[in-house]
Amino acid sequence: MKRVYLDHIAATPLLPEALDVMLPFLREKFGNPQSLHSDGQAALSAVEEARERVARLINASPAEIYFTASGTESNNFALKGLAAANKNCGTHLVLSAVEHQSVLNSAKTLEKSGFKTSLVPVDKTGLVRAEDVEKALTKETTLVSVMLANSEVGTIEPVAEIAGLCKGRSVIVHTDAVAAVGNIPVDVQALGVDALSLAGDQFYGPKGSGALYLRKGLRILPFVDGGIQEGGRRGGTENVAAIVGLGKAAEVALSRMGERAAKAVALRDKLIEGLTRAADRVVLTGHPEKRLPHQASFCVEFIEGEGMLLHLDMKGIAASSGSACTSKALKASHVLLAMGMDHALAQGSIVFSSVEETEAGDIEYLLEVFPPIIERLRKMSPIYTKYQEEKKK
Amino acid sequence: MKRVYLDHIAATPLLPEALDVMLPFLREKFGNPQSLHSDGQAALSAVEEARERVARLINASPAEIYFTASGTESNNFALKGLAAANKNCGTHLVLSAVEHQSVLNSAKTLEKSGFKTSLVPVDKTGLVRAEDVEKALTKETTLVSVMLANSEVGTIEPVAEIAGLCKGRSVIVHTDAVAAVGNIPVDVQALGVDALSLAGDQFYGPKGSGALYLRKGLRILPFVDGGIQEGGRRGGTENVAAIVGLGKAAEVALSRMGERAAKAVALRDKLIEGLTRAADRVVLTGHPEKRLPHQASFCVEFIEGEGMLLHLDMKGIAASSGSACTSKALKASHVLLAMGMDHALAQGSIVFSSVEETEAGDIEYLLEVFPPIIERLRKMSPIYTKYQEEKKK
Repeated sequence: MKRVYLDHIAATPLLPEALDVMLPFLREKFGNPQSLHSDGQAALSAVEEARERVARLINASPAEIYFTASGTESNNFALKGLAAANKNCGTHLVLSAVEHQSVLNSAKTLEKSGFKTSLVPVDKTGLVRAEDVEKALTKETTLVSVMLANSEVGTIEPVAEIAGLCKGRSVIVHTDAVAAVGNIPVDVQALGVDALSLAGDQFYGPKGSGALYLRKGLRILPFVDGGIQEGGRRGGTENVAAIVGLGKAAEVALSRMGERAAKAVALRDKLIEGLTRAADRVVLTGHPEKRLPHQASFCVEFIEGEGMLLHLDMKGIAASSGSACTSKALKASHVLLAMGMDHALAQGSIVFSSVEETEAGDIEYLLEVFPPIIERLRKMSPIYTKYQEEKKK
Repeated sequence: MKRVYLDHIAATPLLPEALDVMLPFLREKFGNPQSLHSDGQAALSAVEEARERVARLINASPAEIYFTASGTESNNFALKGLAAANKNCGTHLVLSAVEHQSVLNSAKTLEKSGFKTSLVPVDKTGLVRAEDVEKALTKETTLVSVMLANSEVGTIEPVAEIAGLCKGRSVIVHTDAVAAVGNIPVDVQALGVDALSLAGDQFYGPKGSGALYLRKGLRILPFVDGGIQEGGRRGGTENVAAIVGLGKAAEVALSRMGERAAKAVALRDKLIEGLTRAADRVVLTGHPEKRLPHQASFCVEFIEGEGMLLHLDMKGIAASSGSACTSKALKASHVLLAMGMDHALAQGSIVFSSVEETEAGDIEYLLEVFPPIIERLRKMSPIYTKYQEEKKK
């Protein structure tokens, strides 16, 4: 059976070029970068080269890049480390309501040690208004964290504008750019942020790779306490292969970004146009223009995401109903609820996200098999039957 | 030039069998284990199989194994997660003075939120006395953490005895078994511990792999806040390849443990006997019998570890002067100081730790090249000259 992978937001395939550079570090070059001998030094050089590549992708300097094991760890590091180190400046956090669980739950943990959180609302396209962030700031605000792009609904947030409004107010601005980095141009200078999280598995790097950008001079406490790795700011033996793979993926992302995005946008728009035309009461979620190139998300009325996923899988199509970090929780997405969607409609969430290998034929195949699936599932839905009857009246 | 790798404690080579099972997850099987579709489910099955293998290695049940990205993360998770979840039982921690930085520094972080730490001393062989741990317990003690084996001096601690004395006192017992698991038999039931940290890169698994054993029913808060992974206790997309590699390394460690240890002990004893005979004022550190099979550590009087490492490296030999997590700090090891060694002697620390590939010829080569290095370095040392002069009198 044809297999069509449209779940970029859950995991991207590892770039073969990235695997190639990783392999020596999974074979003969197994030294620990902290070792003084040649085996250690070979590993260390590779880590430092990767640091330069990651820095270049986001226009940072290498000394501002700290490697972690995931985007989630980067978010924990940013929120907890920055909040703890800058507690004397205040104990108030400002987040958007559509942040990833790793941000929201880190804030909840901080609340146990006296921090207070304000959640800034979003509009029905998932967009945060910069003025709303500004309004939420108090004299006690230490940290603002608004994501750069939301993988569930694709919306790209006005982070540069938010950072601009925070400037001169001694507020640290962090952005969870996990869904964005490697997929759209990200420049920490242009954004004006102090800290930024990224993860390799969102742009064809390996799982287990992530990084946190920290503007030079920023005070932060380690999140993972341990040895002297990462300038004493992140303990644990460096996962050399993962770091090297992340570096390569960053280098390739920079060189192929325009080309990848142009192809992805064409596929995405074909999908959006085709699906909303082929099926009734299927609405695009997120912002119509300010959105990730590779992502198209919908709510399908009267049915639930899980059923669609399983039926699509039987046809060989891999998709998701939201963030993989919550998919099995089977709760309505907090992102969709924050956008004002009612619970029932939010349950019908489905997200298609293309990868580099996706072709027009894959989208055509999806457009061929998905509308009949929707129809079949709706026939089993009592609410749909009721809706149909009322429509006839 | 001949290359002899004797730095097991910094990093082991990745077992080829482990790499073989990892490769499909670095190629076509790139799904996210939290995805509902087949690509996700294939990854999930592999993760669960690895969980069983890791559980078997330490005689735990699979549901008691939580994957992390390193031994350091496991230690952070254990100390911070257990302390925070059980704060109502008390805010006192009991650690040995020779714990790894990830344990000591996690305790320091906990001290900022009201915890107090007692450090239990060790004797001159690095051994903790179980009675000293018992004496340190107060009504406020929540958690005891004593490592199972110390990689810097090789000493194996009486953790079962310690856990026995803590029994019935509502104290949680954690052991950092990173240096031990996979190298010596470890059985969580026989040890009687509630929590245990392990890391793949100490027994031929991949870097970036670790796990925490948590006895069923134990209360813990997540350390890495995020999604629903690892039963909601550890956020972040699972590093599937690393987990699968860890599982394979665990399986092989269990089957080859006796054979590996017997070979390592023979090499270790040859090295200890040969080196202490060939060079004057070179003392074995750690316990003479209760020690790791693959580790031989010494203090070489009058000279410094770094110089020895660099000269050995020029002869193709990779060794370490202590924990890789502190090696470049060039401070005297806190482990040696806790053992009552003076600063000057502690600076002369050198650790040789064999890997599976090490042969008798490698040890012979070391015994051939190392004594002349010691002699050459000592000739440059003013303290040695003084000592020589005084000896002549």
